Amino acid sequence: MSNKMWGGRFSAGPDAALEAINASIDFDRRFYAQDIRGSQAHVAMLARQGIVTDEDAAAISQGLTEILAEIEDGTFTFQRALEDIHLNIESRLADKIGAPAGRLHTARSRNDQVATDFRLWTRDTVDEIDAALLGLQQALAEKALAHAGTVMPGFTHLQSAQPVTFGHHMLAYVEMVGRDRGRFADARARLNESPLGAAALAGTGFPIDRHMTAGALGFTRPMANSLDAVSSRDFALEVLSAAAIAATHLSRLAEEIVLWTTAQFTFVRLSDRFTTGSSIMPQKKNPDAAELVRGKTGRVIGALVGLLTVIKGLPLAYSKDMQEDKEGTFDALDTLGLCLTAMTGMIADLEPDAAAMKRAAGSGYSTATDLADWLVRELRLPFREAHHVTGRIVARAVETGTSLEELPLADLQAVEPRITAAVFDVLSVEKSIASRTSFGGTAPANVEREARAWLDRLGAKR
Amino acid sequence: MSNKMWGGRFSAGPDAALEAINASIDFDRRFYAQDIRGSQAHVAMLARQGIVTDEDAAAISQGLTEILAEIEDGTFTFQRALEDIHLNIESRLADKIGAPAGRLHTARSRNDQVATDFRLWTRDTVDEIDAALLGLQQALAEKALAHAGTVMPGFTHLQSAQPVTFGHHMLAYVEMVGRDRGRFADARARLNESPLGAAALAGTGFPIDRHMTAGALGFTRPMANSLDAVSSRDFALEVLSAAAIAATHLSRLAEEIVLWTTAQFTFVRLSDRFTTGSSIMPQKKNPDAAELVRGKTGRVIGALVGLLTVIKGLPLAYSKDMQEDKEGTFDALDTLGLCLTAMTGMIADLEPDAAAMKRAAGSGYSTATDLADWLVRELRLPFREAHHVTGRIVARAVETGTSLEELPLADLQAVEPRITAAVFDVLSVEKSIASRTSFGGTAPANVEREARAWLDRLGAKR
Amino acid sequence: MSNKMWGGRFSAGPDAALEAINASIDFDRRFYAQDIRGSQAHVAMLARQGIVTDEDAAAISQGLTEILAEIEDGTFTFQRALEDIHLNIESRLADKIGAPAGRLHTARSRNDQVATDFRLWTRDTVDEIDAALLGLQQALAEKALAHAGTVMPGFTHLQSAQPVTFGHHMLAYVEMVGRDRGRFADARARLNESPLGAAALAGTGFPIDRHMTAGALGFTRPMANSLDAVSSRDFALEVLSAAAIAATHLSRLAEEIVLWTTAQFTFVRLSDRFTTGSSIMPQKKNPDAAELVRGKTGRVIGALVGLLTVIKGLPLAYSKDMQEDKEGTFDALDTLGLCLTAMTGMIADLEPDAAAMKRAAGSGYSTATDLADWLVRELRLPFREAHHVTGRIVARAVETGTSLEELPLADLQAVEPRITAAVFDVLSVEKSIASRTSFGGTAPANVEREARAWLDRLGAKR
Amino acid sequence: MSNKMWGGRFSAGPDAALEAINASIDFDRRFYAQDIRGSQAHVAMLARQGIVTDEDAAAISQGLTEILAEIEDGTFTFQRALEDIHLNIESRLADKIGAPAGRLHTARSRNDQVATDFRLWTRDTVDEIDAALLGLQQALAEKALAHAGTVMPGFTHLQSAQPVTFGHHMLAYVEMVGRDRGRFADARARLNESPLGAAALAGTGFPIDRHMTAGALGFTRPMANSLDAVSSRDFALEVLSAAAIAATHLSRLAEEIVLWTTAQFTFVRLSDRFTTGSSIMPQKKNPDAAELVRGKTGRVIGALVGLLTVIKGLPLAYSKDMQEDKEGTFDALDTLGLCLTAMTGMIADLEPDAAAMKRAAGSGYSTATDLADWLVRELRLPFREAHHVTGRIVARAVETGTSLEELPLADLQAVEPRITAAVFDVLSVEKSIASRTSFGGTAPANVEREARAWLDRLGAKR
Repeated sequence: MSNKMWGGRFSAGPDAALEAINASIDFDRRFYAQDIRGSQAHVAMLARQGIVTDEDAAAISQGLTEILAEIEDGTFTFQRALEDIHLNIESRLADKIGAPAGRLHTARSRNDQVATDFRLWTRDTVDEIDAALLGLQQALAEKALAHAGTVMPGFTHLQSAQPVTFGHHMLAYVEMVGRDRGRFADARARLNESPLGAAALAGTGFPIDRHMTAGALGFTRPMANSLDAVSSRDFALEVLSAAAIAATHLSRLAEEIVLWTTAQFTFVRLSDRFTTGSSIMPQKKNPDAAELVRGKTGRVIGALVGLLTVIKGLPLAYSKDMQEDKEGTFDALDTLGLCLTAMTGMIADLEPDAAAMKRAAGSGYSTATDLADWLVRELRLPFREAHHVTGRIVARAVETGTSLEELPLADLQAVEPRITAAVFDVLSVEKSIASRTSFGGTAPANVEREARAWLDRLGAKR
Repeated sequence: MSNKMWGGRFSAGPDAALEAINASIDFDRRFYAQDIRGSQAHVAMLARQGIVTDEDAAAISQGLTEILAEIEDGTFTFQRALEDIHLNIESRLADKIGAPAGRLHTARSRNDQVATDFRLWTRDTVDEIDAALLGLQQALAEKALAHAGTVMPGFTHLQSAQPVTFGHHMLAYVEMVGRDRGRFADARARLNESPLGAAALAGTGFPIDRHMTAGALGFTRPMANSLDAVSSRDFALEVLSAAAIAATHLSRLAEEIVLWTTAQFTFVRLSDRFTTGSSIMPQKKNPDAAELVRGKTGRVIGALVGLLTVIKGLPLAYSKDMQEDKEGTFDALDTLGLCLTAMTGMIADLEPDAAAMKRAAGSGYSTATDLADWLVRELRLPFREAHHVTGRIVARAVETGTSLEELPLADLQAVEPRITAAVFDVLSVEKSIASRTSFGGTAPANVEREARAWLDRLGAKR
Repeated sequence: MSNKMWGGRFSAGPDAALEAINASIDFDRRFYAQDIRGSQAHVAMLARQGIVTDEDAAAISQGLTEILAEIEDGTFTFQRALEDIHLNIESRLADKIGAPAGRLHTARSRNDQVATDFRLWTRDTVDEIDAALLGLQQALAEKALAHAGTVMPGFTHLQSAQPVTFGHHMLAYVEMVGRDRGRFADARARLNESPLGAAALAGTGFPIDRHMTAGALGFTRPMANSLDAVSSRDFALEVLSAAAIAATHLSRLAEEIVLWTTAQFTFVRLSDRFTTGSSIMPQKKNPDAAELVRGKTGRVIGALVGLLTVIKGLPLAYSKDMQEDKEGTFDALDTLGLCLTAMTGMIADLEPDAAAMKRAAGSGYSTATDLADWLVRELRLPFREAHHVTGRIVARAVETGTSLEELPLADLQAVEPRITAAVFDVLSVEKSIASRTSFGGTAPANVEREARAWLDRLGAKR
Repeated sequence: MSNKMWGGRFSAGPDAALEAINASIDFDRRFYAQDIRGSQAHVAMLARQGIVTDEDAAAISQGLTEILAEIEDGTFTFQRALEDIHLNIESRLADKIGAPAGRLHTARSRNDQVATDFRLWTRDTVDEIDAALLGLQQALAEKALAHAGTVMPGFTHLQSAQPVTFGHHMLAYVEMVGRDRGRFADARARLNESPLGAAALAGTGFPIDRHMTAGALGFTRPMANSLDAVSSRDFALEVLSAAAIAATHLSRLAEEIVLWTTAQFTFVRLSDRFTTGSSIMPQKKNPDAAELVRGKTGRVIGALVGLLTVIKGLPLAYSKDMQEDKEGTFDALDTLGLCLTAMTGMIADLEPDAAAMKRAAGSGYSTATDLADWLVRELRLPFREAHHVTGRIVARAVETGTSLEELPLADLQAVEPRITAAVFDVLSVEKSIASRTSFGGTAPANVEREARAWLDRLGAKR
């Protein structure tokens, strides 16, 4: 049977393979609320502009409200033969109110309709993502405040480099997530324009008021070019890019959690709520949630690549390829939301092992830079020379199997005679972190102040 | 409630977020048949090796057969709390046969079990893809045979370059698809080794016979290293690569169909079975299926990128990130299968418009190369000089608004006096294609012979 | 020989393979100006804070100015053994001014230094990209103004859908490029924070003034967390995302140019400046520049994927993997710049063939929507019914081989008796486009107004 | 000035932007040897077929040999205005031998020429990659043999799971690299067909012998379809896929080396040859080479994505987009080669710290599975019950802070009364690994046998 919405000209019905490849109702049904919201804004405008009668508009709007309820209470029957959410709803509307239903599609097309739905959905979802990102920032900042002075090794190349505090490390992610929120906010502002009324691609001769529908739907303005309105999906690409970057940030933190919970590091303990066991090794307590957050980065990046590939080389205006914009975007944003929830729970629950981290922070000659800096400050050595002197002292400590703190003064003076006992003041881990008071540095006082400032800002934004 | 398979040590149940991110039953249920097949092979081996009794093995095997039937007739209840297909089936087995069910998991782990299931599933699916690729080759080769002599413009840079035949063009894709099949076949051969018995990662102390289970499951051999067996997913990456390359081939043909069905080209007509209409423009007959095939390339490439990203930097052996291997692979291979079905239908149904193509083939001075070749052959001009002479003649034809065939001999001789009327013998489209008899060239006799040879080979492979 | 900057502790020199994989001087030399600018800001601050003497600072700054000149006049010798631009410059400084050179690296590290250089370079390059995008917008808007009323077919599914104007089509890209500029501007604002003074990862105990160096280098503020400052590369990912999206926009326009210049479309003519010939087919005039713009989308997307992959799963702080951030970013932004230059030239030069486009715009029953709209407006048919009526009329026109305009009134009335001769007023292409006066619609008056408004805005932004 | 090879018809020279975007000589010069080899095979065939005279052929071939020498000794001047390697060489040939040079391009085109060059280059490079992969396998297998019995923890989820041997771990990578070699070998076999003689796209009317040129160039056969021959780049995509998969394998090993060299693991020591220092932290010994190998995975994957994007949606035959096939392929294969060299060196040099690994292998209740298996074997418990019993025993060990080995028998019996002192026989790490004698298991005897077998096979393949 040919499609009852557009099939007038067709003698043969669509092939089963076409239906299978073409129907979008299995995924675009997710737009039902946005679609109905958009249609109600559209028909209200049509009525005010005298394009449909108030009676017809009221019947349409009332019918749509009922359909919304039917969908939400699960009594609506979606039909694949009706292809997509738009035709499913319009067809049901016709069942309910008869001929006037046919007036709803005046001065619009599925092309502007789906673009409107998708932008509304994306805007709504970005708001949810933003709330989830904020929640993660709070969990991180709270952990930072609690551990503003908890020492851990700062790594470069995963080699112990200089001591930092666990709170400082948490705040690094607060900053990253803050920029992630900035990217989503910018994307949201940019996408928040209304395609509705662009019709198929050229605009319409009906005296519509696109500013009215834009306003009713919370858009900043109508899009200024009808071809652009129906052809562009850069808004989805931008949101996917923001998601992919956010996912890489999560993947880094997830990698660290996996490392920190190894028997070798034991820097933190995860709660049972975010770990699982093994079917064969009873002693295992695996950081599954962290691993999955790390792994799911792949599908978010994959979704971005997928849509970039779809859009590449597509002529204007709408091509059916663009139907491929939705599933990947849905999956990527769902995935990001899930990862944020899991990560926020993990961070909130995790307990640093301060003793283990302190032990690690003190090993590996991690205060060598402090020694070099002392040589610069006290002996006025040029930094490069101080660096070489420090290198020779470290080599001595390695030979004798001691830490820098334990190295006899004589050994230090054998390398640089002007060194005095005062140097030992800078060689402890506590002294080292306390000294890092430069703006943005890891000194506990800095970290505490930053954590409080973030918590204030984040609380205010709630 | 804590998981009944591995939860012994856990006091708190998994967080809802963990369950949501962790449970794989929503997608790995697809492995049910492979999982049962694998378990039956495993328990038969355990019995033969004396590790379980024949009675227990028989009960287990019988129970599994019943479970298979339950799943296939839809009466099986999948439980998310049981995480995955393996535990869902084993738990049901325990319900059915009691304690002996607990003997099934002897000398194996979910790690080798899921690797086995996934390889079996991939192998089965590759076989389906191969059949679909073969079907496409047949449709293409049949169309090639029917149009071995139907002229069309051959393009470079989408500019008319030299005439070719439509059959020759179809056969180009037969070749590409042939290599796609080669890639899948190579991937299949390489993946067809059995991980079963690698257990968690180290092998087992039970006296198992991995060659027996490998043989029972149709694998060529057991994998030679237990760590590799549970840690590697290059087989999935290879299959995804083959799928991505095949998808790009389909995207090229799809692009051509979109072009060919424009009002500007009108080279082919698609059947109604593979086109759709517009909700607002009643005259439209859109090549949706071709556009979707082109667009879906994106998600196949995205799946490949996704899994490459997942695997990048993962230490051995199993990490939970690897659970992300399945959904993308399922989606990519399902998508490829759908695209192949749609493309095969489109090709089988499409009707070339020979007149339109011939008209196009004759325009654009497409036999200029034949003229240049004539100058080389007959006047012994070096090709580069012939090329320049031809360029000047074409310029003259452009000026006077004629085709090369219509250009007066005098005009030709004004550029190169030695040209004779014999030159006109090579300037027609028919002469041009007939002359291209070099191996692999577009001469109709070549094309017909090639098409027949392919059809023979493909038929034999059915 | 071991490296003279950090090699104190090493007994053996780096392996040739390490040097080959490790040295970055071949590409990071591109940062020379930013590196020197950053060092001069740093040493000026060190002097003001009393960390180095004014004399040393002056010598360092003067030495760096000389080195800048040496690099710019080509007399500087880069050495691979010195690994990177930072050590090459510092080593040369030591040659020039001796020991005081060693004071420059006080209170900083290569980690914050390279992050600073890279942000400065990216900021500078984004400014160049913005100028190039603006140039393209101007070329497009000028072409739009000149062709505000030039009719062309508007396509959906590459099938003629409704007439639009060429100017309207050009303006669609002005909008897209405008959003591209917005993305780069947002990225620029977000990246414009100073990492300098974060030192290796933990900040420093020297009393530095990071706000001073940030201000001197044009940064909005110092980054607030030292770990984040040296570990994050989301700024590069964001710029690459913006580049990838911009490249897909260019690829769409490029695809259209390739289509429009085919013998089948002949919608536009490219100038000789942006086409090339063939080595064997003298008549060819190939749209190479457009094809290359389209193709180069691949490498920009590839660079984005590459860096996302690099960053995925990297623990804090600096890991050497991050050295891979530069080459891809350089290549992607160079490529985008080149594509913008080529595209701007092509657009400025191209000449639409108004007659050919008008002919095409009138075919394919492209005013069917106008007929349907007339039925809604004049006969008060619900749109869906109007759509069906129109479908039957188009079918009649197809049967009789006429256009809609040429169809006898009787044929129209046979389908819907109430149709009057007034309907022919809306069936011409000119009437159709003139009627599309809705906001953002294709009516020539709209297009002209929009084009002028854009040109005003763009001129003001120059 | 217009191009002297194809510019006959053009009045204006190419724009600088076109030249910049269009010229490929900066990278395709890399094909010089293949290009000359191909031309010499072509002209020898032309002569044998009587298409050029023997004298001309001899002059051409001799001239090409001289040009090869000029290029190799650095005296050849490449010109950007001549676009590519083909025209640079042909132009130089014309300088050397005059008019006969113009006969070389008879019966071919740049389209088949570049396809031939690229296949030859790729084939040569794949052979180099294969040798490098084999070298890595040897280094791994030698290390495996030396450490067939060196215990280390086997990880899942990076949690200690069961003991394995370091040799077994090395052999897992030998297997992976073996499959990588298989992929390259399959790709090599599939690409080794000759496009030469396909000419522009349609074949030629000259009586060429494509089998002769194919044979002379070491190709298995000429490609069977001329359109396919000039249009397809799946061979490059396949090689890039193989490279991307191989790179992910290297990235996993690189990640492990980074982990193993941390202060927390200290499982292995890298030689100074593959580590570097820090500019500010003198004690650092960073695993730069491993990090770079891990990071460079990104650019290899990026190159694959780039070319997939280029090819997506390209109509036949040659489009200029395809010029983008080379740089990414060059970069990806160069990168892979460099990574293989570095990794082979790292593996050859690295020294496992057997004591540290053994200590780690014994912690974390890593023999819990051995206990569960003992319960199955000796007490005939179903595995699931044994697993639960073991879980309770481990919990007791965790409470009392002892290892499994140290747990008093009474504690074991409190959980399961039938346990006897014989159980302690299976709870040591050595017993555990020695027991894993299943095919592919980690028992030292297995590992040694496998390592020897690999070394034999690899030696034989040299």
